[in-house]
Amino acid sequence: MIIDIHGHYTTEPQALQAFRDKQLAGLADAMRKPASTDLGITDEMLLKSVEPQLKFQKDRGSDLTVFSPRAAGMAHHVGTEEVGQVWSRMSNDLIHRICTLLPDNFAPVGQLPQFPGAPIERSLPELTRLVAELGFVGVNLNPDPSGGYWKSPPLTDRYWYPIYEKMVELEVPAMIHVTSSCNPAVHHTGAHYLNGDTTAFMQLLQGNLFKDFPDLKFVIPHGGGAVPFHWGRYRGLAQDMKKPLLGEHLLKNVFFDTCVYHYPGIELMAKVIPAGNILFPSEMLGAVKGIDPETGFHFDDTKRYVDQVKALSDADRYGIFEGNARRVYPRLDRRLAARGKKGRP
Amino acid sequence: MIIDIHGHYTTEPQALQAFRDKQLAGLADAMRKPASTDLGITDEMLLKSVEPQLKFQKDRGSDLTVFSPRAAGMAHHVGTEEVGQVWSRMSNDLIHRICTLLPDNFAPVGQLPQFPGAPIERSLPELTRLVAELGFVGVNLNPDPSGGYWKSPPLTDRYWYPIYEKMVELEVPAMIHVTSSCNPAVHHTGAHYLNGDTTAFMQLLQGNLFKDFPDLKFVIPHGGGAVPFHWGRYRGLAQDMKKPLLGEHLLKNVFFDTCVYHYPGIELMAKVIPAGNILFPSEMLGAVKGIDPETGFHFDDTKRYVDQVKALSDADRYGIFEGNARRVYPRLDRRLAARGKKGRP
Repeated sequence: MIIDIHGHYTTEPQALQAFRDKQLAGLADAMRKPASTDLGITDEMLLKSVEPQLKFQKDRGSDLTVFSPRAAGMAHHVGTEEVGQVWSRMSNDLIHRICTLLPDNFAPVGQLPQFPGAPIERSLPELTRLVAELGFVGVNLNPDPSGGYWKSPPLTDRYWYPIYEKMVELEVPAMIHVTSSCNPAVHHTGAHYLNGDTTAFMQLLQGNLFKDFPDLKFVIPHGGGAVPFHWGRYRGLAQDMKKPLLGEHLLKNVFFDTCVYHYPGIELMAKVIPAGNILFPSEMLGAVKGIDPETGFHFDDTKRYVDQVKALSDADRYGIFEGNARRVYPRLDRRLAARGKKGRP
Repeated sequence: MIIDIHGHYTTEPQALQAFRDKQLAGLADAMRKPASTDLGITDEMLLKSVEPQLKFQKDRGSDLTVFSPRAAGMAHHVGTEEVGQVWSRMSNDLIHRICTLLPDNFAPVGQLPQFPGAPIERSLPELTRLVAELGFVGVNLNPDPSGGYWKSPPLTDRYWYPIYEKMVELEVPAMIHVTSSCNPAVHHTGAHYLNGDTTAFMQLLQGNLFKDFPDLKFVIPHGGGAVPFHWGRYRGLAQDMKKPLLGEHLLKNVFFDTCVYHYPGIELMAKVIPAGNILFPSEMLGAVKGIDPETGFHFDDTKRYVDQVKALSDADRYGIFEGNARRVYPRLDRRLAARGKKGRP
């Protein structure tokens, strides 16, 4: 089967955004606060809203999307911590409902109610609820809840340890994913996302986090930002810093996705990153929505690029499309097995 | 000839750093201020200090390095604006002396006395002095003088226009180059430099700066950060934003260098970026100093990577190694011609 491990719910019913607007308007004028958290979104509306994703799954040949709330919608820097708690819960609940309605097409990943400067412990109850109660298979972790100003300590700092302990206990990986940018110098999908990936990787390279958490797993999205393109630079920096080789130092715990929207990028990635560290996604209905005039296909139809990489063996290909996802997301593997879809032994 | 357009003076005599320490110590205790700006650095000391660069030029087969002060040394966010003015002038004067002593090996590029929040106009006198009085051929422009917090407006903002007007008048390009990071989340050479390149490119993509400045030229270093690896993403974002094709929108004015420290990166770059937009440098004695155990050669011996790209024509190769530099840095071309080294017609 083909597992797409990075899809966001970017086709939400209008009622969700209307609620969000009321919620934020309520910060300025309490009269505008939403009266209820009942959005009035029916199952039919949810099913209707993900028809574009289902069509793309069919057209492009993927089976299941690991699905989380809109990345830019997390907006951890917006409003108050209380507002963020309500917003996270509501956003996650919609994901849960969709994945319950369409369990063969979607598996749930959640957002956390992170807030700039707030202790990460405040995100633990929602993480536990998502995984232990609702069966989520992973979580998005934002290394910069300040939204483009990078005011949090690096991911290797003890500030983050409580969430790592809980992740390891619950057996869920995190995708390291920033949200929108409130920094006018830094465009979200064109700069902040890729910078977030690059910055997180370098933080991990500088530290020794996986000595403390050998079972912790991170997925760095968007092909790892600038990292594979500069793989020689990172190998060289690690060497200058007297770190172990990257395979030993980071690659047991750090994985990259294939959200790179042209063939030469995926080709490079397959050359420098071991196939066991590459997971397939498209982030479809994400940052780039158009059709590439040079190919006639959607920019984010990334399966086509992976299919074109001749150097991959069958085992590599199985890993990228399915096996690695089952390994990095063990709860996804169990969820699929419970539905009669076991991976290769 | 082989022109390396990106070298920083990372082998400065100890006296320069000692002055800097006194200068910064003087902020805390006026008693520690340096007594004089005379560093006591003789011509012999300068010649001795660049022997490593000369050796690498010879060993690796480049002829001339476009040479500027240490990038991380600019540190625009440190101290006061007055301290930065003195520091910039002093750093640039050393570059001038080296390039005067060894005019066949080095051509000068300067740093600007930018300061967070200060009007860019305060950098104009130094720019004019460098180019009109001292024969500098270009300048480094820092899009984030806050050192990793991105507090300046984007490069397309009118804040920057006075420096662009002067650059166009003086016929010098800018390399868009951040300096050190004072943000503990953002490592300088492993994250901030690449993020700076990516962010600057996206700022330019979002705007229409070159409509106002058709003759303005920027070099984005370190292979353009994440940009070539995500070239499809940028083509797609430009299309979604109803911008012209990138060739029309940006590539008459924006150029990338080859500071990418492994062959697969340079190979990708040559596939997606037109050869006319690629300039050769190594940034030798820069971010990565070691020998790649996979090749037995220095990571930053980038000429080897370019030499290996079979798809480049002779004309492409001439452009990357010499012709494009002469075009982007017209004062370099004239400087070379005055020394009897004309480019191809």
